[in-house]
Amino acid sequence: MSAQHSVSVALLQASQSEVLQEIQSDFLLNSSLWVNIALAGVSILLFVYMGRNIESPRAKFIWVATLLVPLVSLSSYAGLASGLTVGFLEMPAGHALAGQEVLSPWGRYLTWALSTPMILLALGLLADTDRPTLFTAITMDIGMCITGLAAALITSSYLLRWVFYGISCAFFLAVLYVLLVEWPGDAAAAGTGEIFGTLKLLTVVLWLGYPILWALGSEGIAVLSVGVTSWGYSGLDILAKYVFAFLLLRWVADNEGVVDDASAGSMATGTAPADD
Amino acid sequence: MSAQHSVSVALLQASQSEVLQEIQSDFLLNSSLWVNIALAGVSILLFVYMGRNIESPRAKFIWVATLLVPLVSLSSYAGLASGLTVGFLEMPAGHALAGQEVLSPWGRYLTWALSTPMILLALGLLADTDRPTLFTAITMDIGMCITGLAAALITSSYLLRWVFYGISCAFFLAVLYVLLVEWPGDAAAAGTGEIFGTLKLLTVVLWLGYPILWALGSEGIAVLSVGVTSWGYSGLDILAKYVFAFLLLRWVADNEGVVDDASAGSMATGTAPADD
Amino acid sequence: MSAQHSVSVALLQASQSEVLQEIQSDFLLNSSLWVNIALAGVSILLFVYMGRNIESPRAKFIWVATLLVPLVSLSSYAGLASGLTVGFLEMPAGHALAGQEVLSPWGRYLTWALSTPMILLALGLLADTDRPTLFTAITMDIGMCITGLAAALITSSYLLRWVFYGISCAFFLAVLYVLLVEWPGDAAAAGTGEIFGTLKLLTVVLWLGYPILWALGSEGIAVLSVGVTSWGYSGLDILAKYVFAFLLLRWVADNEGVVDDASAGSMATGTAPADD
Repeated sequence: MSAQHSVSVALLQASQSEVLQEIQSDFLLNSSLWVNIALAGVSILLFVYMGRNIESPRAKFIWVATLLVPLVSLSSYAGLASGLTVGFLEMPAGHALAGQEVLSPWGRYLTWALSTPMILLALGLLADTDRPTLFTAITMDIGMCITGLAAALITSSYLLRWVFYGISCAFFLAVLYVLLVEWPGDAAAAGTGEIFGTLKLLTVVLWLGYPILWALGSEGIAVLSVGVTSWGYSGLDILAKYVFAFLLLRWVADNEGVVDDASAGSMATGTAPADD
Repeated sequence: MSAQHSVSVALLQASQSEVLQEIQSDFLLNSSLWVNIALAGVSILLFVYMGRNIESPRAKFIWVATLLVPLVSLSSYAGLASGLTVGFLEMPAGHALAGQEVLSPWGRYLTWALSTPMILLALGLLADTDRPTLFTAITMDIGMCITGLAAALITSSYLLRWVFYGISCAFFLAVLYVLLVEWPGDAAAAGTGEIFGTLKLLTVVLWLGYPILWALGSEGIAVLSVGVTSWGYSGLDILAKYVFAFLLLRWVADNEGVVDDASAGSMATGTAPADD
Repeated sequence: MSAQHSVSVALLQASQSEVLQEIQSDFLLNSSLWVNIALAGVSILLFVYMGRNIESPRAKFIWVATLLVPLVSLSSYAGLASGLTVGFLEMPAGHALAGQEVLSPWGRYLTWALSTPMILLALGLLADTDRPTLFTAITMDIGMCITGLAAALITSSYLLRWVFYGISCAFFLAVLYVLLVEWPGDAAAAGTGEIFGTLKLLTVVLWLGYPILWALGSEGIAVLSVGVTSWGYSGLDILAKYVFAFLLLRWVADNEGVVDDASAGSMATGTAPADD
C-alpha cells in the first residue's frame, strides 16, 4: 500500500509546484500577480492611515468594508502567485484550446465572492439603503461569482461552460439593477448622491469589463493569452478595487458629517435613535 | 516531469468527463436533473413576475429570499448535470456497495447549505421573528447541511458515515424546534399565523423526507438505486422549493399590507420607526 | 477508459483510508481528537441544560452563539478523526521535513473559520458593541483563519508558507485591537465590564498560543511532532472553547437581567424599543 500511497501523493501534489514553475516562467502572468500584491499592500497602509480619525458608526462601517477589499485582494493574489489556487485544466471539445492543458487561475473567481460583496456593502452603506436591497445586491453578487467559478471549472462540456457563464451574467443583471435603479434614489435622499454617482459609474463600467475579458480570454474563446487575460483582470482590479476604494475613503474622511447625519437609526448601527 | 504532469492531469480530470458520461447513460438520473433545471427556470421567471409590484421592505425581503431558492437550485442542478459536483466514491467496508464506486451527487448537499437558509429566512421574516431565533434556525440549518455533506464524503469508515448522519439529524432537530415551537407564536402575533401554519406543515413534512431518502438511498443502506434516489430528492425539491415558494409569494403578493404593518421597526428594514 | 477510471478513483481515494490508518496508529494524535469529541459532546449537553431558562433576546443570542462553538468543534473533530479533513502534504524545500509527507490536519484551520466567529459574536454581544465593530472583529477573524489555512496548504514554496502566516497574523492584530481597545469600553458602558475583562484575557492569552504552536509544529519549523502539535491545539481548544463557553454561559444564566437591560433597542433584537 505504501507504494500506491507514494504515487498518489506525488501525483496529487505535482500540480502546485508545476503550476508555480509555469507561472514564474511567464513574465507577463507573474508580474500581473506581484504588481497587485504590491499595490494591495500600499492600499492597505494608506487606507488605515486615511481612516485613523473616523469615528461615527456608519463612516467606520464603510471604512472597514472598503479596507477589506485590498485585504482580500492581497490574500487572493498571494494564493495565485504561490500556485495554490491555480490549476491546469484540460479544455473540453469545442474550446479553442480543446485537449490542451490551460492554466486556470480559479482562485480569482473564488475570492471575488469575498471581495466584491465588500464593495457593494460599502456602496450600499454610502447610499444608506435598506436591508432587503443590500441583501439583494450582495446575494446576487455572490451568485454571480460562484457560478462564474463553476463556468471556469467545467471541463466536461464546452456548452455547459457557457451555460454557467449565462447564469453568472443573469445574476450580474440583478446587481446592475440595484446599482443603477435602486440605490441612486437612496443616495440622493441620504445626501450622498454626487459621490455615489461617480462611484456607481466607475463600478458599472469596470465590472462590465470582467465578463467581457472572461469571454475573450483563455476561459472563453481564447483570443487572448493567459498572461494578457491576467493583466486584464489585474488592471481592472487596480481600478475597480484600489482606485475605487481610495476615492470612496477620501470622500468619507472629508465628509464624515454627511454620513453621520444620515445614519441616525440606520442599518449601520442597529441601534434605535434616541426619542426626544 | 512533463510526463508525470500529463499523467496527473489526465487522472485528476478523467473524473468529470466520466461522471458526465455515466450521468447521461442513466436516463432516470439525467432526467431527474434536467426536469429540475427546467422547473427552476420557470419558477424564476414566474416569481420575478409575481413580485413586480411588491414595495414594502419586509415583503420585498421575503420576495428576494424566496426568489433565491430557485436561483440557487438552478445553479446547483446545472452543476450536477455537468458532472462538476458529482463524483465516484468507493464505499467503505460494511456498506451494501462496499468496494464499489458509487456515483455521489455531493453538490446537492453542498448547495443545500445555500438554498435552505433562504427558505428559513423567508419563513422567519413571514413570522416576523427576532434576530436570535432567525440566527438559530439558519446556523443550525447550515450545520445540518455541512455535516450531511461530510457524511456523504466519508469513504474511510462506514460507522463514521452514520456518525455524521446522526450529527446532521441533531442539527435538524434544532431547526424543527424553531419551526414548530418558536415561530408559530411569532407568526400569530404578526398576523401571519394561517399562511405560516400551512408553509410550516409543508416544510416539516417534506424536509423529513430528505434524511429518510439519504438513509434508504445509495449513500445509506442502498435499497434504492442512484437514479431512484435522485428522483426522490428532485421530487422533494420540486415540492419543498418551487411549490413552497409559489404558495408563499402568492400570499405575500396578495397580502402585502399585512406584512407591511407588522414590519414597522422590524428586523427587515433595520431602520427605526417614525415616532409620531 | 474504465481502466484509467479505476486507477483514478483508487489514487484519489487512497488518501482518506490511509490517513485514517495513520491517525489510528498514532495514539497521541488519535487521542487528541477523540478526547475533544467527547468533551464537545458533554459541553453541548451541559450548555443546552444551562440555557434552558434564558428568555431575553440578547441573552438567548449569546447562548446560541456560544452553543455553536462546541457544535462546530464536535463536527470538526469528527471530520479530523475520520480522515476526511486531513491529508498528507509533501513539504517544500527549506522546510525541516522537506520532501517528506507530513500529515496535515487542514480541517482544523478551515473549521476555525466557523467556530471562532461565534466566540467573537458572543463576546461582542456581551459587550453590547455596535455593528461596524462586530463586523470588523468577525471579518478579520475569518481572514485570519482562511489565510492560516492557505499557509498550511502551500507545498510549492517554504517562503510563501510564511508569507501567508504573516498575513494571517496581521488579520489577528486587527482582532486583538477590537478585543483590547474597542470592546472593553463598550462592555463597561453596558455593565458587563467585569465578566468581559475575564473572558477577554482568557481569549487573548489562549489565542496567542495558536500561531506560536503553528510556528513550532509540523506546519512551521517542526520542532514538535504531529501528535504533540495536535494535543497542543486540542488543549488550547478545550480552554479557549469549552471552558471559555462555560464561564460565559454561567455568567449569562445568572445575570440575564444585566444583559436584558442593556439590550433595549440593541443590535441583538433588531427591533426598536417601545415608545412610551
